[in-house]
Amino acid sequence: MKVSQPIRLTMVGGGSWATALVKILSENNVSIKWWLRKTEDAEHIKKFGHNPSYLSDVQINTRKVKVCTKIREAFRDSQYVVLAVPAAFVGDALTGIKPEHFAGKRVISAIKGMIPGANQLVTDWVSEQYNVPVERMSVIAGPCHAEEVALEKYSYLTIASLDPTCADNVANLLRCRFVQTTPVDDIYGIEYSAVMKNIIALACGITRGLGYGDNFQAVLVSNAMQEIRRFVDAIYAKHRDLSGSAYLGDLLVTAYSPFSRNRTFGTLIGRGYTIQSAQAEMNMIAEGYYAVKSIYEINQEVNVRMPIVDAVYAILYEKSAPTIAMNSLKELLT
Amino acid sequence: MKVSQPIRLTMVGGGSWATALVKILSENNVSIKWWLRKTEDAEHIKKFGHNPSYLSDVQINTRKVKVCTKIREAFRDSQYVVLAVPAAFVGDALTGIKPEHFAGKRVISAIKGMIPGANQLVTDWVSEQYNVPVERMSVIAGPCHAEEVALEKYSYLTIASLDPTCADNVANLLRCRFVQTTPVDDIYGIEYSAVMKNIIALACGITRGLGYGDNFQAVLVSNAMQEIRRFVDAIYAKHRDLSGSAYLGDLLVTAYSPFSRNRTFGTLIGRGYTIQSAQAEMNMIAEGYYAVKSIYEINQEVNVRMPIVDAVYAILYEKSAPTIAMNSLKELLT
Repeated sequence: MKVSQPIRLTMVGGGSWATALVKILSENNVSIKWWLRKTEDAEHIKKFGHNPSYLSDVQINTRKVKVCTKIREAFRDSQYVVLAVPAAFVGDALTGIKPEHFAGKRVISAIKGMIPGANQLVTDWVSEQYNVPVERMSVIAGPCHAEEVALEKYSYLTIASLDPTCADNVANLLRCRFVQTTPVDDIYGIEYSAVMKNIIALACGITRGLGYGDNFQAVLVSNAMQEIRRFVDAIYAKHRDLSGSAYLGDLLVTAYSPFSRNRTFGTLIGRGYTIQSAQAEMNMIAEGYYAVKSIYEINQEVNVRMPIVDAVYAILYEKSAPTIAMNSLKELLT
Repeated sequence: MKVSQPIRLTMVGGGSWATALVKILSENNVSIKWWLRKTEDAEHIKKFGHNPSYLSDVQINTRKVKVCTKIREAFRDSQYVVLAVPAAFVGDALTGIKPEHFAGKRVISAIKGMIPGANQLVTDWVSEQYNVPVERMSVIAGPCHAEEVALEKYSYLTIASLDPTCADNVANLLRCRFVQTTPVDDIYGIEYSAVMKNIIALACGITRGLGYGDNFQAVLVSNAMQEIRRFVDAIYAKHRDLSGSAYLGDLLVTAYSPFSRNRTFGTLIGRGYTIQSAQAEMNMIAEGYYAVKSIYEINQEVNVRMPIVDAVYAILYEKSAPTIAMNSLKELLT
């Protein structure tokens, strides 16, 4: 029996989601060059076969996974590049990479955030900066906590690309014993709603920190779905069912789970921590902190009704007291 | 200043939701005759001002609330009757009540279930049994855990009636310091989706008991929303936004909260309890247990795709092993 050549793939990022994706991809016939910024983590993985900083229970199959700390070396010869760093750091991670290094590759974004300042989706930004045709890009959407992938809890991923073949191929790459995948075409709708769910999770955390209960959170999340619909429809009109797993499901797993860093960050803010002390308390970045600025600024042009985004923005960027901002917000919900 | 006469209202039921509603109504100018089946609970409330069996922290304002154990006496002279017993017991609770006792009254259903056997919504059943015109009926929908009302956590109720004035009046009755209310007209859509959310919460519990995680639950709930939409649209077509609080919100509070008795019941089933032992373990009835039978049977005629309802029905009524039923179900979700 002829064994087919493994798919050659570059993984960019050393965090928990990157580690989970390496685990999933290793289930299939994929050869991975894994770029991590931290030399000591890379060395540790080479020696001991697990990431010391994130999901350290996950055994890395070092036959399939080659670790490296030079980004150009990681890019060499690969057919796919997976971006799995926080949106705020993607430019940094790709230092030294030029458009020609992306030539011929397909790009998979596993990032749920926007490029701060540029206020661009990651796919748009990569496409513009590195001349990658949008059709060669895809996006991985949840609901999928990395921590549960580590435990092989049964999970679902949605893969969005404008090119159906690209979506299918990536869906095949990621399907395994404990992960089911579905290819779809709504790449922008899924990216924007993934960005927004982090803001909503942050809002849930704030209300939780202030002492609001489950009844209130259920109303907040329901209203959030309507807010997401207004925004996404205005930005990229398309027939879509927002109760799909990649939209509602992704919001739920983030808003309701104790694993959610955005929710945790919000909880600290609601309890009265300053932004600086809340960030210091956590070992991870809360994407929602940057996302709310981008979405708020974009909405100055789009101009749809977004009371939840407005409230979170006011708290994080305009020094509104959480109690007062949420007191006003609660009158606007139904 | 002239003080307006209090609204005269009968509360039928002695459980946690009835107790929470008595608390809310007592915030307004309402005079309540509260019927409870259990004589010892009624006596306790008279003497000590709280319900010994449910939400015993809630102080009952005995100036506004008169407790009684004779249903006809409770009905006398009242303008509103609130039904707040499990659906399976409503016929029992109304023993001795005849259509003429309902004459001239408005009926508020706080029940989220169907009449077992008859497979009827509570409003339809009351209307048929007691000649109450449907326009004089309304339904109270959440998301609203009684336990959080007891704690005065800020909550929202949706009041549905075919008659907008009736919905408005009941919304005014229930609005208070810690409860916001919204009147709407989709009484059947809201009743059916309230019935179905109990089944979904039960399904969430089963998967939880089997060891599935947050990722899976988010997908289950997303798929459930699509299942609810298919069913409700087929049964009672109408333009409605299922991401509203009364639909999605009510599902979330039930599916995600540790207060949910349906979820708890499901968790026990998922852990391997028999139905009898799971019921014995709990002090409350899980409406979802009856609801799934009604909805499943109705769907034999309506015939929409309902894999989650089918799986729960198979487990509870056809002796399917939870592991096997959920293994099949997980292939049908996306």
